[in-house]
Order: sequence, then structure tokens, then C-alpha cells
Amino acid sequence: MFYGQVVRLLEKRGVSLDAIAEIVYALQKPYHEDLTVGQCRESVEHVLRKREVQHAIITGITLDMMAEEKKLPEPLQTILAIDEPLYGMDEILALGITNVYGSIGLTNFGYLDKRKPLVIGRLNRGSAGVHVFLDDLVAGIAAAASARIAHRLPDGERFEGDV
Amino acid sequence: MFYGQVVRLLEKRGVSLDAIAEIVYALQKPYHEDLTVGQCRESVEHVLRKREVQHAIITGITLDMMAEEKKLPEPLQTILAIDEPLYGMDEILALGITNVYGSIGLTNFGYLDKRKPLVIGRLNRGSAGVHVFLDDLVAGIAAAASARIAHRLPDGERFEGDV
Amino acid sequence: MFYGQVVRLLEKRGVSLDAIAEIVYALQKPYHEDLTVGQCRESVEHVLRKREVQHAIITGITLDMMAEEKKLPEPLQTILAIDEPLYGMDEILALGITNVYGSIGLTNFGYLDKRKPLVIGRLNRGSAGVHVFLDDLVAGIAAAASARIAHRLPDGERFEGDV
Amino acid sequence: MFYGQVVRLLEKRGVSLDAIAEIVYALQKPYHEDLTVGQCRESVEHVLRKREVQHAIITGITLDMMAEEKKLPEPLQTILAIDEPLYGMDEILALGITNVYGSIGLTNFGYLDKRKPLVIGRLNRGSAGVHVFLDDLVAGIAAAASARIAHRLPDGERFEGDV
Repeated sequence: MFYGQVVRLLEKRGVSLDAIAEIVYALQKPYHEDLTVGQCRESVEHVLRKREVQHAIITGITLDMMAEEKKLPEPLQTILAIDEPLYGMDEILALGITNVYGSIGLTNFGYLDKRKPLVIGRLNRGSAGVHVFLDDLVAGIAAAASARIAHRLPDGERFEGDV
Repeated sequence: MFYGQVVRLLEKRGVSLDAIAEIVYALQKPYHEDLTVGQCRESVEHVLRKREVQHAIITGITLDMMAEEKKLPEPLQTILAIDEPLYGMDEILALGITNVYGSIGLTNFGYLDKRKPLVIGRLNRGSAGVHVFLDDLVAGIAAAASARIAHRLPDGERFEGDV
Repeated sequence: MFYGQVVRLLEKRGVSLDAIAEIVYALQKPYHEDLTVGQCRESVEHVLRKREVQHAIITGITLDMMAEEKKLPEPLQTILAIDEPLYGMDEILALGITNVYGSIGLTNFGYLDKRKPLVIGRLNRGSAGVHVFLDDLVAGIAAAASARIAHRLPDGERFEGDV
Repeated sequence: MFYGQVVRLLEKRGVSLDAIAEIVYALQKPYHEDLTVGQCRESVEHVLRKREVQHAIITGITLDMMAEEKKLPEPLQTILAIDEPLYGMDEILALGITNVYGSIGLTNFGYLDKRKPLVIGRLNRGSAGVHVFLDDLVAGIAAAASARIAHRLPDGERFEGDV
């Protein structure tokens, strides 16, 4: 329902689907040598079609944007503006995304959220903006898309139907 | 850290700690005949001192209030204003609360969220306000406070130290 | 992969797919007046085709059966044999099932786990067997199948593609 | 209640509390320069006193041991013996541990589960034994103990009361 809006929201915040697909490719390539970036992008698109995922992205990015515009009431405005390290709602929302293809996504989510490779790291470093939720959301999307590939291409042998 | 602010936020939205304690009492009385409402209130206060719980309450109530004031950008404004039944971020935030005393809180959370007894039902019926997050948050707090009592007063026999 | 085995395991433990479909029907009928038991059964089958769900069922029922046969080492044997009320691993495994169609399943899971209607209650009352995991697993399957229907038949109007 | 038994179970499977404390120290030292291994060990002990954590450890290690002794019925015996990569119940049980000090533990859990440093890696490489659950459990304990330190020693400045 919100697929187009979600893709535009991500792009507006500096995250293209191709950038997420690159993360998925880096994660899954060692296990599936024939994997292409195109398959990774298709998996990212599949994740973004889930309503639960769309709701998490809309909620998290809205909070980031309103904090950036200083429109939130206190104390939430300050919690997000200083990126309070003990605030865990960003991980919680991302967990909802990570789980859409099963709990094996948890490991990759945590790894990405700590190492912050590629576009995730650029979000965290660069800008003056607020990206409290965005980096976790992107890690969650990439982790879920990786789990979907792992379910569909186990050891590069099988290709199953609906996961 | 935010204990006082969280108590005031709840009261501003029509939820006193005593009203939550009543829910806990109704849930746990059948299992612990000597239980008092005072013990339930003390358990609610204990739950509200957890930082994770405070962050969930602040985040959820802020979203409710901004939706009520029509200050959120679309599509989130409409999702919350119509209380979209497939929106699950309220359950997700409440899950973070419910889990602070272990997963046995899950059952009571779901039960409260479906049956909506006492103050939870009044929130849902009465007002013209937006309470998408609030009813789940209150159910989560009551479920966690019940789990804490269950851990401390199993079968009314033991009273253990720190849970 | 394990679909047939999982169906047989459930039946061996006294739970037919039709019995789970009846729970789903009771939960969802108020919201979708044209709903049939056949659609509910089809939704249950869909849930049981998810690998995460199969793994949870296999793990939980295996533990129930081994406890029933007194084959587990201590202290797990006693924890399961006395159905220790503070053991939460049954809720944890069921949560993995409940979440396959998003977090809206949480509410129904908790409600079913507390009220124990239909086949879930019969499991808990009747037999001399150990059903620590089984009742939560069945509640989780029914909650996920209900969430799937809610996603597909919102207000009986739309029928969408892949949820 | 099961504190002593849990410590012995971990040691029997090759994991000392000091080995877990070393992981916590490696994770948290960069953020708290005065941190000692002793404080990390104390935090690990605190995590192991939580009943939810004890139940997860007892359940997971029991399954590992029975698989090692080839005492589980099929298909669970084979799933664990081959360490089926899509089996997610080990992550699910560990999640129950990770969450006891809030959702900020998620990131470290995933990171540890992927990178498998120190004792976690030795478990995975070395032996002929089955450690499907153990490595996730240890990652979960270390992540929770780290979250507890982060809550208590934010930026090395504050030392708060009960987290």
C-alpha cells in the first residue's frame, strides 16, 4: 500500500534500494557464489512490500525528520537530537522488520548495526541530520532481505517457493 | 531519569498509577490471596523506573499527542488518526515493556490488549483523542507489573530478592 | 520441508488442523461475516508451511514428549513435568510463530494463551501428558493464521496478494 | 534458583564465567576506560541470576547435550546434528537473554553471533560436540551483561542504582 511512499522516504533520507542491495550482496555472496546484485535488490523490494516493514519505516523516519526539524516535544526531542545511546526504540522497530523472514535475521541485523558498513556508516558519519531510526531500519531491511535469500538459496542448491 | 515525567505524561492522558495497579490486582489476586492493591502499585512504580519502559512510554504518547494535534506528516497522521487495525508498532513498543520481567508477561499483555478491562477500555471508548499507543502501553505496564509479582510471590509462598 | 511431519506431530498430540481452524474462525468471524472455516483452515496450512514455524513446533513438541517419557535430564525434566509457571521458553518459541504475519498477532496469542478456548483448553485439562509447549504453540499458530486473515481481508473488502 | 546448576552446566560445556567476562570487557572497554574485568564478571553473574536467563540456558544446553548423545527423536536430532543454518530457535532463546537489560543488547548479540570472538569461536570450531544453542546463549549472556554495564556506567560518569 505504501510501497512507493516508503521508497521515496528512504531516498529522501539518502538511502537508495541499490545501496541496501549492496549490503545484502556483501553479506550473502560468501555463501552463494552465483548471487547477483539484481537478486539482492529484488529481495529488498520484497521486504519493502510487507506492511509491517512499511509501518516501521514510516514511523521511524517520521520521528527522525521531526527531530531534525525540532518539532518534537520534550523530552523526546532531546533524546533523539543527542542520539541517546541507551534509547532502544530504534532497535525495537527494526526488530519488527528483521523478523519478517524468521529469527535468523537477528544475527545479521546486530552485525550491521554495530559495524555500520556502506550506506549505514555514511548515514551515521556524514550529515548534520538526525538518523536515530534510519540506520537501524536500513540494517533491519538488509538483514531481512539476507534471511530471505538464505531461505531461498540454501547452499546455492535449492530454490524454493514461498518462504 | 524520566520517572516523574512519565508519571505526569500518563496522568495527562487519563491514566493514574492507581488505575494500572487495579488491573494488576485483578490479574494476580486469584493466584495470591493476600495480595494488596498497595503491592500492585509498588510493582507498577518499579516497572516505570526502567529506562526501556520510560523510553517506550515517551515515544508512544508523543506520537499519540502529535496525531491528536494533527501535527504529524502523512501517511503517519492518517494511520494513527483512523487507528489502522493492521498497524503493529504499538504492540511492538509495548512488547519492549512487557518483556522487562521475562516472557511470561506476554500472555497477560495479549489478554489485556484484547479484553481492554478497566482504564484500558475507558481509553478506547470514551474520548475524541488518539490513543493508538496508550492502550497498548498501559496493557504492557500492567502485564510487566504482574509478571514481577508472579516472580516474587510464586504461589504466595516465597518472597525473593531482586527479580 | 517438514510440513507432513509437523501435521502428523500435531495430530499425534491431539491437535487436528480443523481444531485450530475453529479457533481462528471464532476469533475472526466477528470482523469478516463471509468468512468460512475452510478459509481459516487454508490460513492455518499456510502458517504451517513456514520453516520458522515448523522448527518451533518440532522443538517444542519434542521437549513435551521427552518430558512425558521422563527422558530429560534434570532440572529440565522437573521444570516441564510440574509445568513451572515461571518457565517462559514456551511463550518465547510461540512468539516466533506468532510474528510470522506481523506483530498484530501478539494480542490474539496472549488472549488465547490465557483463555485457552476449544482444543487449547482440552489439552490443558484432560490428559496426564505433558503439554507445556503444545498449548502455546497452538495459540501461536491460531494467532498467526488470524493475523494473516486480517492482513488479507481487512474489513471484508480487499483481497490482496502475497501478505 | 538454578544459579549454581547453570554455572556448572556452562563449565561442563567449556565456558567459564571468566571467558564470558572477557568478551564483555572487549566490547565495553572502548566506552569506559576504567572498566575492569572484575566488573564485567560481576555483570555476567548478575545476568545469570535472572530466572528467564537460567531457563533459556538449561533448555538450550539440554538440547545440545541430548543431540550430542544422539538421544533426540527425528527430525530434531538431524537438524541439530548438522547445525541446520536456517534453524532459528537458538537465536530465539538467546533473544530472551539479550533482552533482560533492554533492547540495546540486540546489536551486540548479533555482532557476537556473527563474529564469534574468543570462547564463542572456540566452541564453534573445535570440538566434535553439538553447540547449536551454546554459542548463541553465550553471545546473549555477554550482550546482556554489556547492556547492563552501558546502563550503569554511561560514558563512565554516572553510576546508577538498580537498572
